[in-house]
Amino acid sequence: MKAVGIIVEYNPLHNGHLHHAQQARAESGADLVVAVMSGQFLQRGEPAFVDKWTRTQMALDAGIDLVIELPYIYATAQASDFAKGGVALLDAIGCESFCFGSEQGQIAPFLNSLQLLTEHAAEYQAFIHEAIQTGISYPKSLNNAYLALTGGQPGFADLTQPNNILGFHYLEAAQRLSSSIKPLTIQRIGANFHDPITVGLPIASATGIREAFFKGNSVEELSTYMPESSISSLKKAEKEYGKFGSWEQFYPLLRFTILREGPENLKLYAEVTEGIENLIYQSAKTADSFEIFMSLVKSKRYTRTRIQRMLTHIYTGFTWQTLHSFQLPSYIRLLGMSEIGKSYLNHKKKNISLPLISRAADLSDSMGKLDIHATTMYLQGMESVHLKKEFTTPPIYRG
Amino acid sequence: MKAVGIIVEYNPLHNGHLHHAQQARAESGADLVVAVMSGQFLQRGEPAFVDKWTRTQMALDAGIDLVIELPYIYATAQASDFAKGGVALLDAIGCESFCFGSEQGQIAPFLNSLQLLTEHAAEYQAFIHEAIQTGISYPKSLNNAYLALTGGQPGFADLTQPNNILGFHYLEAAQRLSSSIKPLTIQRIGANFHDPITVGLPIASATGIREAFFKGNSVEELSTYMPESSISSLKKAEKEYGKFGSWEQFYPLLRFTILREGPENLKLYAEVTEGIENLIYQSAKTADSFEIFMSLVKSKRYTRTRIQRMLTHIYTGFTWQTLHSFQLPSYIRLLGMSEIGKSYLNHKKKNISLPLISRAADLSDSMGKLDIHATTMYLQGMESVHLKKEFTTPPIYRG
Repeated sequence: MKAVGIIVEYNPLHNGHLHHAQQARAESGADLVVAVMSGQFLQRGEPAFVDKWTRTQMALDAGIDLVIELPYIYATAQASDFAKGGVALLDAIGCESFCFGSEQGQIAPFLNSLQLLTEHAAEYQAFIHEAIQTGISYPKSLNNAYLALTGGQPGFADLTQPNNILGFHYLEAAQRLSSSIKPLTIQRIGANFHDPITVGLPIASATGIREAFFKGNSVEELSTYMPESSISSLKKAEKEYGKFGSWEQFYPLLRFTILREGPENLKLYAEVTEGIENLIYQSAKTADSFEIFMSLVKSKRYTRTRIQRMLTHIYTGFTWQTLHSFQLPSYIRLLGMSEIGKSYLNHKKKNISLPLISRAADLSDSMGKLDIHATTMYLQGMESVHLKKEFTTPPIYRG
Repeated sequence: MKAVGIIVEYNPLHNGHLHHAQQARAESGADLVVAVMSGQFLQRGEPAFVDKWTRTQMALDAGIDLVIELPYIYATAQASDFAKGGVALLDAIGCESFCFGSEQGQIAPFLNSLQLLTEHAAEYQAFIHEAIQTGISYPKSLNNAYLALTGGQPGFADLTQPNNILGFHYLEAAQRLSSSIKPLTIQRIGANFHDPITVGLPIASATGIREAFFKGNSVEELSTYMPESSISSLKKAEKEYGKFGSWEQFYPLLRFTILREGPENLKLYAEVTEGIENLIYQSAKTADSFEIFMSLVKSKRYTRTRIQRMLTHIYTGFTWQTLHSFQLPSYIRLLGMSEIGKSYLNHKKKNISLPLISRAADLSDSMGKLDIHATTMYLQGMESVHLKKEFTTPPIYRG
């Protein structure tokens, strides 16, 4: 059996994701699609809109065969570590290829770019370092360095586009892992990353869909942009929690934590760098809402995403020290499977290079305990009374 | 002008407190009564029922002339440190005497006990140490040691009684400070410390009054046990916050903090000792209410009060390290004054041995900043939107 892997968040799953999964299967000619999916906190440094079990159900309903959890440490990291965790897991579970959506839509430019940067690694790093010194953001520094190297010649990937950047990191991660996994890409269609919903188009961004929710659009109104099964999962989650996840919802606990810790301690948390701890602390003192807080903390130097990642780590209590204690994934946490997925696991069992974990109780190392911890922190933000849900929810089987 | 000092919590102020203040004035023959009062967290390790400003108003309405804040570090400490902070402040502001309520009702037995223990200090400490080794609680160990020393002879204070114990610590503190302040005591009347309200008696314990509130008794029903002015202050506080302070009210934030920190970090907080961190952590995992939590953590070894003090420090983020960095009070924080109180301060100004602080902004050292911090933490537990209230509330003047 031949598997293709994808790396996803499904926050929530919409028509664009459906297209991606279908195209991944078609392009690769695989028998099944394996999704490595973020858990309760996401790469943009946000609590998930709905919990990971709801999003697993959405994935299975949309035709995914295996859903694997991307551990907290990678799921909330900047692109290169996010990519490292995702690709390592797809490699470990035996995928022959992986497929990502990109603005580029062709794999050749990515391969060219990877070769160029590999051959001029030192030069590239020097350019990045130089750019950062001028005070501009990390993503922008990366791009400036890249442009300096390619000199605007054709045939290279356009690394100003968010999905191209992430895709490039996937290729880089596979190379660093010396993995034989084959990269594939498909053209992203419809909506850009941050676009609000455009009426008349069947594809909207997940960001746009979440915003529509918080503006009070009903679940039904979004049926143009999402499969019926996603809508029904969202309804179920809304019924269970009475709310959707967002920083605004989590802000009272975040604010309490920031004010309790104080600037000296805030520095200890992962991603919190260079004097921003005072700004975070002072802003929490006055800001009564998350949006006001963010408007006080945001600056040219730090993107919203970067700040939100700091906040995620402050919220969960995840320190620089813990961050530095991890390298590669140490387990494969199974969240859900289809009939084909199940048979793949039975078939491949002996060739899977990491322990396959179905129950939270079997997550015995510190990386795994961090995932359990992240869930406990998430559920409190959601005001759930079922803080032990991690232990009472088995992998979802969709036969 | 001659001042008598009292050390109080007024949580809330009732007829017993009124009696105490009146008797202190009468016994001492003083021109004014100075109260050193706990701030937002109390000696039993609990958030205050109403904030310190409300309790200051109650005190002034009940005839107190000066209300001084007992800093967090002393207000939430075990009896000896609580006493040290209180007596040091009364001494610094120039009180000639202080007066405490006791079951004993006479000062002579206290003086005898103090002399005995001073003369047999080493022996006493050895007895205490021995008792603690057998695994019994600190207060009980203290009492066993004391009984071993007095051998049940008459003429000594009965240190099995809670108010006698506290009173004894006041005398001990005055002695250690080499203060010339004169100790006085009056007989406590009416209700014991933990007694629920007894219908027909005009005196009820503060604990009993708070319990009656949480059971849903209206503010008016309690008018038998409290002066009208206290009732009116409680009503005002209820209108402002929509709730009264209690661990049950603060539990979601406390629980989040315990679960976020984990056992390894919990050990760092003041009063958390000897493996109890695991019990605290595991109990928070399962307990959905504070009462359930407490029933899981309480044991023979630790009194409820002792555990609550740990929880207070976990909640506010107050560590062993910070605790050990303090010795004596470094300022006198003025919360309220009557006309006589004001004229006393003008008159005595140059003889007051610590800086007199009227505005939070002038609390510049770490002890003072901790008081501001405690208020911010308290107001979040109360779900107040006025987190800067410490800076916007001047001392209350009752002319």
